[in-house]
Amino acid sequence: MRDLSWSKHEKQIAHTAFKQALAREAAALIAEVRTKAHAIAELDDLWRLEQFLHAKRHALEQRYDYRYSVLLYVFVDLIQAGWLSLDELAGLADDKRARVAALLACARGDGE
Amino acid sequence: MRDLSWSKHEKQIAHTAFKQALAREAAALIAEVRTKAHAIAELDDLWRLEQFLHAKRHALEQRYDYRYSVLLYVFVDLIQAGWLSLDELAGLADDKRARVAALLACARGDGE
Repeated sequence: MRDLSWSKHEKQIAHTAFKQALAREAAALIAEVRTKAHAIAELDDLWRLEQFLHAKRHALEQRYDYRYSVLLYVFVDLIQAGWLSLDELAGLADDKRARVAALLACARGDGE
Repeated sequence: MRDLSWSKHEKQIAHTAFKQALAREAAALIAEVRTKAHAIAELDDLWRLEQFLHAKRHALEQRYDYRYSVLLYVFVDLIQAGWLSLDELAGLADDKRARVAALLACARGDGE
C-alpha cells in the first residue's frame, strides 16, 4: 500500500471514516462494560473485568493504526468487524476502493 | 508475632474477622466500580478504570495476607482502614488484643 498517494480530500474522508469507526466501537465497548459492571457480584468478577479491559485496550491499539501505508488494511478489518461500511469510503480514488473490495472478497473466500 | 500460638477457637475468630473485612471491602469496591462504570463517557475513562482495578487488585493481594505470623499487623491495617473493628477480635487471647491495641495507639501517635 506504500505506492498509494492520498489527496487532501481523500485524507479527510479517510480520517472521518476512521474516527467514525472508532466512535462506534468505543460506544459499543462502553455499553458492554457498563453491563458487565452492573452484573459484578464478587471480586473475581472485578478481576475478570480488568482482564477484559486490558485485552480490549491492546486490541484497539493494534486495530486503530492511522498510517497511510496500512490504512486500507485497517479499513478492511473495520468493515469485516462491522464498525465501518464500504460506502463510507466513497470519495476515495477508485484504485483504493477497488483494493479494499478485493481484500474483502479474498477474506470472504470469494477468490479474486 | 512469630512467638504467638493460636488456639483452634482463636483461629476461627480470626478467620471470621478476616473474611468479614474482605467482604466489606469487596462490597464497597464493587459499588465504587459500578459507579465509575456508569459514569464512563469515553475510551480514556475505560483505561482509567482498568488502571484503577489493576491497582486495587494489587492492594488487596498485599493487604489480605492470612499468615498467622503477620495476622495481627493485618488486623491493625484493616481496623485503621475501617474494614474491621477491634470488638470483632473479642475471643482472641488478651496478649493478642493488647498487641493490636498497642499498635493502633502507636499508629495514632498516642505513644505506648
